[in-house]
Amino acid sequence: MNVEDKLNALRNLMKERNFSAYIIPTEDFHSSEYVGEYFKAREYMSGFTGSAGTLIVLPDEAALWTDGRYFIQADDQLRDSSVVLMRSGQPGVPTMAEYLSDHLQEKSIIGFDGRTVTERFVQTIAEKTDEKQITFDGREDLVDFIWSDRPPISTEPVRELDAKYTGRSREEKLADVHEKMHAEKADILLLTALDEIAWLTNLRGNDVLHTPVFLAYMLLTMDEVYLFIHEQILSDEIRSKLTRAGITVEPYDAIEQKLHDIATGSKVWIDSGCVNYRLMNSLPDNVEKIDKSSPIVLMKAVKTPQEMKHIRTAHVKDGVAVTRFMHWLKTSVDKEKITEISAAEKLETFREQSEGYLGPSFEPIIAYGVHGAIVHYEPTEQTDVEMKEGSFCLADTGGHYNEGTTDVTRTFALGTVTEEEKRYYTMVLRGHLAFGAAKFVHGICGRNLDVLARGPLWEAGLDYNHGTGHGVGFVLSVHEGPQRIHWRMSENTQIALEEGMVISNEPGIYLEGRFGIRHENLVFCRKGEKNEYGQFMYLEPLTMVPFDRDAILPELMSDRELKWLNDYHSKVYETLSPHFNGEELKWLREATAKIVK
Amino acid sequence: MNVEDKLNALRNLMKERNFSAYIIPTEDFHSSEYVGEYFKAREYMSGFTGSAGTLIVLPDEAALWTDGRYFIQADDQLRDSSVVLMRSGQPGVPTMAEYLSDHLQEKSIIGFDGRTVTERFVQTIAEKTDEKQITFDGREDLVDFIWSDRPPISTEPVRELDAKYTGRSREEKLADVHEKMHAEKADILLLTALDEIAWLTNLRGNDVLHTPVFLAYMLLTMDEVYLFIHEQILSDEIRSKLTRAGITVEPYDAIEQKLHDIATGSKVWIDSGCVNYRLMNSLPDNVEKIDKSSPIVLMKAVKTPQEMKHIRTAHVKDGVAVTRFMHWLKTSVDKEKITEISAAEKLETFREQSEGYLGPSFEPIIAYGVHGAIVHYEPTEQTDVEMKEGSFCLADTGGHYNEGTTDVTRTFALGTVTEEEKRYYTMVLRGHLAFGAAKFVHGICGRNLDVLARGPLWEAGLDYNHGTGHGVGFVLSVHEGPQRIHWRMSENTQIALEEGMVISNEPGIYLEGRFGIRHENLVFCRKGEKNEYGQFMYLEPLTMVPFDRDAILPELMSDRELKWLNDYHSKVYETLSPHFNGEELKWLREATAKIVK
Repeated sequence: MNVEDKLNALRNLMKERNFSAYIIPTEDFHSSEYVGEYFKAREYMSGFTGSAGTLIVLPDEAALWTDGRYFIQADDQLRDSSVVLMRSGQPGVPTMAEYLSDHLQEKSIIGFDGRTVTERFVQTIAEKTDEKQITFDGREDLVDFIWSDRPPISTEPVRELDAKYTGRSREEKLADVHEKMHAEKADILLLTALDEIAWLTNLRGNDVLHTPVFLAYMLLTMDEVYLFIHEQILSDEIRSKLTRAGITVEPYDAIEQKLHDIATGSKVWIDSGCVNYRLMNSLPDNVEKIDKSSPIVLMKAVKTPQEMKHIRTAHVKDGVAVTRFMHWLKTSVDKEKITEISAAEKLETFREQSEGYLGPSFEPIIAYGVHGAIVHYEPTEQTDVEMKEGSFCLADTGGHYNEGTTDVTRTFALGTVTEEEKRYYTMVLRGHLAFGAAKFVHGICGRNLDVLARGPLWEAGLDYNHGTGHGVGFVLSVHEGPQRIHWRMSENTQIALEEGMVISNEPGIYLEGRFGIRHENLVFCRKGEKNEYGQFMYLEPLTMVPFDRDAILPELMSDRELKWLNDYHSKVYETLSPHFNGEELKWLREATAKIVK
Repeated sequence: MNVEDKLNALRNLMKERNFSAYIIPTEDFHSSEYVGEYFKAREYMSGFTGSAGTLIVLPDEAALWTDGRYFIQADDQLRDSSVVLMRSGQPGVPTMAEYLSDHLQEKSIIGFDGRTVTERFVQTIAEKTDEKQITFDGREDLVDFIWSDRPPISTEPVRELDAKYTGRSREEKLADVHEKMHAEKADILLLTALDEIAWLTNLRGNDVLHTPVFLAYMLLTMDEVYLFIHEQILSDEIRSKLTRAGITVEPYDAIEQKLHDIATGSKVWIDSGCVNYRLMNSLPDNVEKIDKSSPIVLMKAVKTPQEMKHIRTAHVKDGVAVTRFMHWLKTSVDKEKITEISAAEKLETFREQSEGYLGPSFEPIIAYGVHGAIVHYEPTEQTDVEMKEGSFCLADTGGHYNEGTTDVTRTFALGTVTEEEKRYYTMVLRGHLAFGAAKFVHGICGRNLDVLARGPLWEAGLDYNHGTGHGVGFVLSVHEGPQRIHWRMSENTQIALEEGMVISNEPGIYLEGRFGIRHENLVFCRKGEKNEYGQFMYLEPLTMVPFDRDAILPELMSDRELKWLNDYHSKVYETLSPHFNGEELKWLREATAKIVK
């Protein structure tokens, strides 16, 4: 079936149910960022393969909303279908709620699989459609009727993450969470985010692409803890450890009934921005809701000293692999045939040489030349190109290790690049260095610091259409909150940066049809001196990979910026050189040598 | 009477009324920043002369809350009284609400003059005291019984501000406001802020220190406009112009009855953060309140092209006066006797030489040596000192002109200052220059940019305990919102900077017992290029006064920073030189000459 056939099949099902619209988001039942194959209904229906997007199907039209990362890719992939691309946030583009409110008649019904949308999402729609007395029906997954070769839901075995890595046992974490529940006067805490459940149980799984989590829900009362899970994924050993920690295992699908049975008047802590519509509507009417982020979000973001120690180790391993890749790529291009995909595979082999490497933390972005301008480009067989001298290769990749999760972007000059390309490279680097060198008082949030990374670009009338930074989980999601670096107001840009938080520092520039440049390090947020002016904070670089000096124009950098760069490179050399020898070591020494004007 | 006598007299009056606490804020009936002499009840009762502070008197103790600008001054002035200083916002210091909730028993009554506190202030207290069923009584001004030689309430004549200065007639402004009321579906708009009323009526007065406003309230329905005013302050000519514009004049005190008579079910637009408690409680119960800032706040902040043209003129006049003062001070110190007060008087004579000069826009801060570390120091006869070579003179002053309002701070090196003092001077200057050179996309708010001004200080583990910038009125308050430059979250730091807004750029450093440095320019927020990345904005300097090169260490500045400074100085020379000649002109040329490393 092509996209039109699928949409028409869906429209027939909609008609039978009297639905005037059907919403297909990119979500599993847990608001995960990446989803397992079973959940890729929007991709199946629309043909657009990006990781973010929502399809709305009406009887006579269909539209897909996605964000700035995917405008170019979506435009390309939707071109041959009747699906209209909606560039979220661009002037004149309606929100989904506005679109539905404009297109639907009074008393229409909007359908969706209520497990794949959050309660808050539905509220957002309702705000605009209430006037027309439009209602919602979240009972059925209509795509399931159409998608005949749908992959089964994943039930991969879980494994234990030793407390030597996490620094806190599941018993200790449960006690901490119970304390937070007590402080909030909550009787019940519902957890639906997979990374929160993995973090709390010190377990890891393999049910979601690139994220070592497993499908589960948790429900905590003040004296009981329930884990809802496909029971076959637990070994007897883990099951008995969970029992010892006071955790009762129940079937994955039993959660709805459990919520339904909550006693009248209970105070239930639940995050409407994360919990799915169907679960929210399984709660009895007469419970009191505490609607806010779970206490685990912040606890998980602030790494323990034990986790911090291991994360540094993971970054040394990752730095060795990516630096080796850099050396190989820059010296082999035009000598052997290298494509974007073959380069990604090569980098994977370098990572695999490290003990404790678990796999990629996201789909590798190896983007050559014009592809670099597509912010979240992922090479496919259709787009793959050979890389030759004379342009940039933007490589944004990461890995999970037993010791932590990495995410690094470097832009490599293959052969000689133009002075103009170097100017852009240096401009983005100046922003990256300024952000990395930030020293600030405690209380500062992501929205306060963003200007440091964007400043050199803004000065030149340029910008990038994505955040400057995000949190990173510990052997969990490569993107996690609550902190976020962006000047725009949002809940996540007003979280104070705390000792032990990991953030990415990744400004970029994307010139459509020409090239893209991004420089990304992960950093730890650290406490510095404390004095009468406050607790000062600074950023400790974690990523250990040289910036490509072949694309740097030192004359465009201030002495301060050059010093930051040279200090970083000398730390990279110091950290990585014990792992290199021979020709590679000689190259590393040159690649990190002091740059002067 | 000394402070103790006054407090005891108040306690007797409190006892008669069964009050357990009495609150005396620093407010007139209009939440004005500066207040007329009649309203200085808190100063009269406590002896603390700072412009911000609230006194709470209990039967057996009294406490005064003030902010970081006044910690040192208040500590000094309260030392010999029983009044405890509460340093607002410092660790361990209770808020007023916490203090009252801690100290008062169940069912206590808190008294205050309900015209001198805002509705929102009372709500803030109530949130903490409601549990104890504490109530409020705002009917009486008890200080009035004690203050026998209280000055009368001011009733100075008002004058017209020609539309050639404002660019918009009062009729046009009224039409704009009615449009905003229509959009908000408001039946009635109550205006109580004096600068909003002066702005809307294109009138100026003289009832409040340093602010050319007059005591008045306004009430707009969709087809009527009432101005409540002491009628003797209007000339027949102005009165008839107001009538022609559809404005009905009523007595100042008639506002309470007018509010009382509002028709049931009306939608009343009122700002609980600004309207006083008694007026708010004059509203009938069954009106619907739209509680938000009046539409005038933003309209007033965004200057018209006509106002912008005049403001530039005012700044040239002011620049001539302050630069002449700089020349005089630096060349006369140690040759004639100059004290802080005599210097302030001298600067006033320079300003008075300008046609259209109306008077100071705030109490001049001329602070020598250690006094510079007291952020809002104002020299008094008790504190005045002679200025000699070998230290800094911090001069923060401003004026009202027919063409606009100025506010400028320069820190002058008198004779030779130490290398360390120059290091600090240069550090603060680097932050000032970086902020002034900011280029950014439209949508950026004060909280996003603050880091630019503080960065060089934070880098050295230093900071300043005040905002980086504030708005400035057009021949109105020298401090006005809604925009504000500070990293901390507040309503005012999340206002997007718009073309035509005036903001101050005034980082500083204050080393208690040693010296203080502040560099302040006013700037216009301007639209720059618009392209695919957005509408870019930049800052146009308004203040035209050299920075003191005798205190600058160029070797600590980047090339970029030096270029910003040299560009600014060359603009200052170009702007001011036509107004100077002879020895002064020669000095100006040297004072603004290019600085090289």
